[in-house]
Amino acid sequence: MIDEVVKVLNDVKRKMPLIHVITNYVVMNDNANALLSFGASPAMVMSPEEAYDFTAISNALYVNIGSINNEIKQAIINSVSSASVHKIPVILDPVGCAAIKSRIDFVKMLLKLGSISIIKGNGGEIKALSGENANVKGVDSLDDNGVMEACIKLAQKTNTVVVSTGKEDYISDGKKVVIVKNGTPLFTKITGAGCTLGAIMSATSAVSDDKIIAALTALLAVNIAGELAEKESNLPGTFRAKFINNLYIINPDIIKKHAKFEVLKV
Amino acid sequence: MIDEVVKVLNDVKRKMPLIHVITNYVVMNDNANALLSFGASPAMVMSPEEAYDFTAISNALYVNIGSINNEIKQAIINSVSSASVHKIPVILDPVGCAAIKSRIDFVKMLLKLGSISIIKGNGGEIKALSGENANVKGVDSLDDNGVMEACIKLAQKTNTVVVSTGKEDYISDGKKVVIVKNGTPLFTKITGAGCTLGAIMSATSAVSDDKIIAALTALLAVNIAGELAEKESNLPGTFRAKFINNLYIINPDIIKKHAKFEVLKV
Amino acid sequence: MIDEVVKVLNDVKRKMPLIHVITNYVVMNDNANALLSFGASPAMVMSPEEAYDFTAISNALYVNIGSINNEIKQAIINSVSSASVHKIPVILDPVGCAAIKSRIDFVKMLLKLGSISIIKGNGGEIKALSGENANVKGVDSLDDNGVMEACIKLAQKTNTVVVSTGKEDYISDGKKVVIVKNGTPLFTKITGAGCTLGAIMSATSAVSDDKIIAALTALLAVNIAGELAEKESNLPGTFRAKFINNLYIINPDIIKKHAKFEVLKV
Repeated sequence: MIDEVVKVLNDVKRKMPLIHVITNYVVMNDNANALLSFGASPAMVMSPEEAYDFTAISNALYVNIGSINNEIKQAIINSVSSASVHKIPVILDPVGCAAIKSRIDFVKMLLKLGSISIIKGNGGEIKALSGENANVKGVDSLDDNGVMEACIKLAQKTNTVVVSTGKEDYISDGKKVVIVKNGTPLFTKITGAGCTLGAIMSATSAVSDDKIIAALTALLAVNIAGELAEKESNLPGTFRAKFINNLYIINPDIIKKHAKFEVLKV
Repeated sequence: MIDEVVKVLNDVKRKMPLIHVITNYVVMNDNANALLSFGASPAMVMSPEEAYDFTAISNALYVNIGSINNEIKQAIINSVSSASVHKIPVILDPVGCAAIKSRIDFVKMLLKLGSISIIKGNGGEIKALSGENANVKGVDSLDDNGVMEACIKLAQKTNTVVVSTGKEDYISDGKKVVIVKNGTPLFTKITGAGCTLGAIMSATSAVSDDKIIAALTALLAVNIAGELAEKESNLPGTFRAKFINNLYIINPDIIKKHAKFEVLKV
Repeated sequence: MIDEVVKVLNDVKRKMPLIHVITNYVVMNDNANALLSFGASPAMVMSPEEAYDFTAISNALYVNIGSINNEIKQAIINSVSSASVHKIPVILDPVGCAAIKSRIDFVKMLLKLGSISIIKGNGGEIKALSGENANVKGVDSLDDNGVMEACIKLAQKTNTVVVSTGKEDYISDGKKVVIVKNGTPLFTKITGAGCTLGAIMSATSAVSDDKIIAALTALLAVNIAGELAEKESNLPGTFRAKFINNLYIINPDIIKKHAKFEVLKV
């Protein structure tokens, strides 16, 4: 499995995929810098008029609903429709759907509208989408109980790869679960670590048809970059910069040396 | 007074209040990272459709009018209305109201609409709101003459705690004035230092009914974090990161050691 | 020529021009911090209702079309109209116009609407505007062939100073070309380096009627700040902070020591 991860990592650097990013205003700059450091080419195109055509020329679409209003919703709808027509992978980040119930309806509508490659959320969001009660504070998830089960359930229900982040991260296609144990709690002290993960996952999905591998590559890259950054600085202001540095220098040897994950059959 | 400040500082860390942030696009990321470092949980929810309900589940509302358009104005109106109904403290940051006169009308409308806990602006904005002539360049204030008096007058007129920032910062409820002498001129060389102060003031207001103390705690934390950051780097690019670091590590001992303020009766 | 550059650099610090910035959401924070470090006073005012009047009190207008939607288009139209009436210099950054063809029409409309002082884009954007085929990936330009010629041609066609960025940067008024050879490839690994250049060019245009000199001053300041930053860190996360530091400390001696440019007659 690690060899496939390495291939995806190298393919991103080699192909420099164009990622259409529709994300929230808070993390737009962070997402762009993370994608550039990782070797991809991001473009944030968020008007309904431009969204459909821009998705059509992109290699993947990242949809983050953290700042949606009616206009951005329309841009997302247009882009997801375009992605379905043009066979572009879509990574969906249902930010805040546990606290703001109307967002669950919007996510369900998107799931009907087009084929979503990966749904990636924190534990609370994945539980909320799978129909469980979630313990959240605003956009943050407060406990990880039952998250793996919710992840599997949602993958089976939606026929999609589902990724949930937390103390441990889970990737499931409904048949198996990959548990990723890398990461750092400092990610909860900076804004947008989860969003950056979603953006990076779009880059890996652009170069791999195996979305489990694409998700795993992104999780390992982001989490290990975070671990290495934490060793350089355990304070959030400088940690942020070091995290981007490490996304830039990450390579197969670093991934192989630090990766901690296991695979379970469901 | 310093003991009450220490209690507020500790309560933010302990309770991790959820802060509903409606702020300008320029500083959204900075505000989110500052709140996370300080121990609060920020969420930027800015659509009119979601704003009312989200304020209702938050512990404080921060309203910054730096990037208003018609849609954001509506979101602000909905959130301030919700805050009044649900007894949520509101911190209002009248960015740019000295240069753009129509913003004064919007601020006055908000003051009628709901109860505002704290109005926090730079000297020029506070003078403009209190009906004085202000010497400003765009969103920046050019002189501090008469600011303390404007602060007191506006507090009396609006029955609100008013905070003005500048070389010295003033907090007034119309009966007394607290003068805070901490800070660094480097805050004028980075964007959004004042907005970050407003966001942090929302976090302290979420855990304290005494808005003078809430304002003082935020001013001391932000200004002292800035002073310590400046000792680590006096260049704005690295200063910004060090400022966030110091907001993260600030604690009662640091506050007690560095705080410089005095209280005057009006 | 370098003496004129030095004068512009000093005049920005001395006059602290107010720059009305209408830019994309991704780089708004970066643009504001860069302008503050360079000595200017930025204000991002992007609502159609406020744009006309705010341009009228500004010293220059920076228009970046990277995140346009219908509302921002209207704000831009209002501001460019105001700039024409009030003789405010306008710097136009046609982000993404090579990949999104409808943006070319919008740019052409702006060129008819008011007098644009400088058009600044990457090689692909300048080629697309001059009617050539451009080899681009999203908002990034992939090759520099024929860019100098496109730059001259567009300057002649529009009677405007045209700046194109890439491995070498070109400035042309249609009669001569200034070739700037400073810079660092790390600018392609962070988001918004080109946008920051456009913002800085607005600050220099605010204090100089000679737009060739204004463009040259901005290019030298930004590129040399980048070169010095790269010597301090060649990793993008920390490079970004060091770049802002160097925009802050740049001065006539540094410019004179490092500037590499030549002038060709057309």
